[in-house]
Amino acid sequence: MQEDILIQKFKDLVPYASKNTLIGIGDDTAVIQLSRGKQLLATADMLMEDIHFRKRWGEPYLLGKKSILQNISDIAAMGGKPISALISIAIPDNYIETDILDIYRGIGDAAKKYKITICGGDTIKSSGGLVISVTMLGETDGCYPLRKRAKVGDIIAVTGSLGAAGAGLKLLEEGHSLDSANKVERSFILAQYLPKPRIREGQILNEIPVNAMMDISDGIGADLRRICKESGVGAVIEADKIPIHKNLEKVTDKPFELALTAGEDFELLITMNSDLFEDARKKITPIKLSPIGVITEEKDIMLLTSDGIYSRLADGFTHF
Amino acid sequence: MQEDILIQKFKDLVPYASKNTLIGIGDDTAVIQLSRGKQLLATADMLMEDIHFRKRWGEPYLLGKKSILQNISDIAAMGGKPISALISIAIPDNYIETDILDIYRGIGDAAKKYKITICGGDTIKSSGGLVISVTMLGETDGCYPLRKRAKVGDIIAVTGSLGAAGAGLKLLEEGHSLDSANKVERSFILAQYLPKPRIREGQILNEIPVNAMMDISDGIGADLRRICKESGVGAVIEADKIPIHKNLEKVTDKPFELALTAGEDFELLITMNSDLFEDARKKITPIKLSPIGVITEEKDIMLLTSDGIYSRLADGFTHF
Repeated sequence: MQEDILIQKFKDLVPYASKNTLIGIGDDTAVIQLSRGKQLLATADMLMEDIHFRKRWGEPYLLGKKSILQNISDIAAMGGKPISALISIAIPDNYIETDILDIYRGIGDAAKKYKITICGGDTIKSSGGLVISVTMLGETDGCYPLRKRAKVGDIIAVTGSLGAAGAGLKLLEEGHSLDSANKVERSFILAQYLPKPRIREGQILNEIPVNAMMDISDGIGADLRRICKESGVGAVIEADKIPIHKNLEKVTDKPFELALTAGEDFELLITMNSDLFEDARKKITPIKLSPIGVITEEKDIMLLTSDGIYSRLADGFTHF
Repeated sequence: MQEDILIQKFKDLVPYASKNTLIGIGDDTAVIQLSRGKQLLATADMLMEDIHFRKRWGEPYLLGKKSILQNISDIAAMGGKPISALISIAIPDNYIETDILDIYRGIGDAAKKYKITICGGDTIKSSGGLVISVTMLGETDGCYPLRKRAKVGDIIAVTGSLGAAGAGLKLLEEGHSLDSANKVERSFILAQYLPKPRIREGQILNEIPVNAMMDISDGIGADLRRICKESGVGAVIEADKIPIHKNLEKVTDKPFELALTAGEDFELLITMNSDLFEDARKKITPIKLSPIGVITEEKDIMLLTSDGIYSRLADGFTHF
C-alpha cells in the first residue's frame, strides 16, 4: 500500500476528535486549542520490533493499543489528562495489510476509550522491523508531582500489583500465545499488552498532594533509583510489603525477583508525607495503594527482608 | 552506553530552554505553558536509515540538524512559530558513541538556532537501522492556511528554487561526500541535509493571506496533487516557470525531471488569489516567489510545455 492510502486508512480507523482539535491528521501540522489556565504536557515513547515485542507473538491489534496506553500512563504520572497523540509508524515489507490495519484499529480503539484525538504523525517504509513512535499530549491545571521532589522521611508507595506484565513477557518469550494459554497465563499476556493507565489515581494523588510520582516502566528497582537520583536521596524498601501479583508463582519459581525487576506494569510509584497517606489510600480505592518503604538521607536503595537482612536493590528491566 | 547515560548526554547537548518550558527532558512528560490566545501546532516526522539516509554517507551531525529542520518546515507551512520538540531515537549496535553524540549536537545546534526547546522523547536500542522520530510543537495566533483551501482561479506559486536537495541525494547515492565533492556538489549535498525552513515567509504569506500552503517534501508533483485532492480541484503548471535550481545541469542531464520529482527541498507551495500575488512577492523578498500555474476546475494536474503541449504531471519522490 502507498503512504497516502495508508494514511487514509489510518484516519478512517482513528475517528475520535475532541472539540479542541481544530485540525487533525492530513495537513502539515495538527492544530489544537488549549483551554485557558491549562498547561500542556508532552511525552514520547518508541516501540520497536525485537526490542519491545516480536512479530511472532502475533497480536498487532493489542500492540496498537499498548502503544497508546503506555504513553497515557506518562500523562497519568503527572496527574494530567491525555488529549491528543501523534503516531509515526515504520512498516517493514513482511507485514501484510491486515497486520497494519489491526495495529491502526488497536490505536483507534484505545484512543476512543480515553477520548484522545490522533492528530497527526508519519507513515514510512521500514528498512528493519516495525517501529511505532508515539507522542502524547495532555493537559494539567498547573500543579504536578515531579521525580525530583521526594523528601527524606516520605513514605514510598505503589498502586496495584507488580509483575503481571513481566510474567506476560516471559510467557510470550517461552512461546505461549493467547490461543494456547490457560486462564491465568492469558491474564498475564493481556497485562503485557494492555496496561491500565492510572489517570484517575494520578489526578487524585496529585491533589493530595504527593511529592514525587512516576509510572513504573522499567521495574521498581530502576525507577525508584531514578526518583532517588533526581531528588538526591536514598530509600529503604521492605521486601514483604511489595505488592506482588498473587498468581505470579503459577508461572515462575522466582515471583519476588520477577515483580521487582519486570517492567511495563505502568503502576504509579509515589513518595509522600506519611501524614497524608491514609487519606490518599482511601481516596484511590478500589485501587490498592501499598506502602513499601521510606525515603532516606543515605543515598542508596536498600532492600530489607523479613529476617532483618539489608541488601542493595537490584536494577530493573532491560529490553531484549 | 546505557539509556540513562545517553539521555543525560542528550540533555547536555540540547541546552536551550524557552521560558514557556516549565519542565523539560527527564520526567514523565514535559510541561509547556502556552500564551493565551495562541493555538498549539503539532507535527511529526520519522527518519530511518536506508529509507531516508545511509550510514555510509557519514554525516551524523548534519543528519541531527536535518531531523529538526524538516519538522520546523511543517510548522512554517502553517504560518506558525516552532517552540518545542520531542525526539525519539532508536540506536543500532554498529553506531559508535561519537556518531550518536554528533547527532545530538546537530539536534542541539538546530534547536538553539531556531529557539526550540527539546522537551522530551525516548532513547531505545534499535534492532535494525538508526531511527530518529521527531514531534515538533509550534504556535499560531489562530489563522492558518490549509491544504484544502485552494480555489479555482488561484495562482500557484513556490518559494526559492527546486531540485537542490534531490541533486544532493543523487550525489550521495553515487558515492560523493562532502570531502570528495567540488564546490557545486558540496552545495547540493548540504542542501540535502540542511533545508531552510521558511518560517518568516510562511508567516508573511499566511498574513497576506494565501488560500492553501504546504511545504514540498515529496516533490512538487506529489505535493500539488495533495493540495488538489484535498481541495477538490485541479491545476495547470507551466513548465518554463518552474524555478529550477540554476546549477542542476552540472550534476544531471535531466534537471527539469529532477526538480519536479525530487523531494526534500522544503520550499513552500501556495495557492492564492491573483490580486494579492504582487504584494506577497514584494513582502517575502529577498526570497523569490515564482508563479508557476493556476488552479482549475478540471480535476487533473497538467503540465504545459513551451511548445504548447499538455501532459499529465509526473508524481514525486519515493524513498529508496
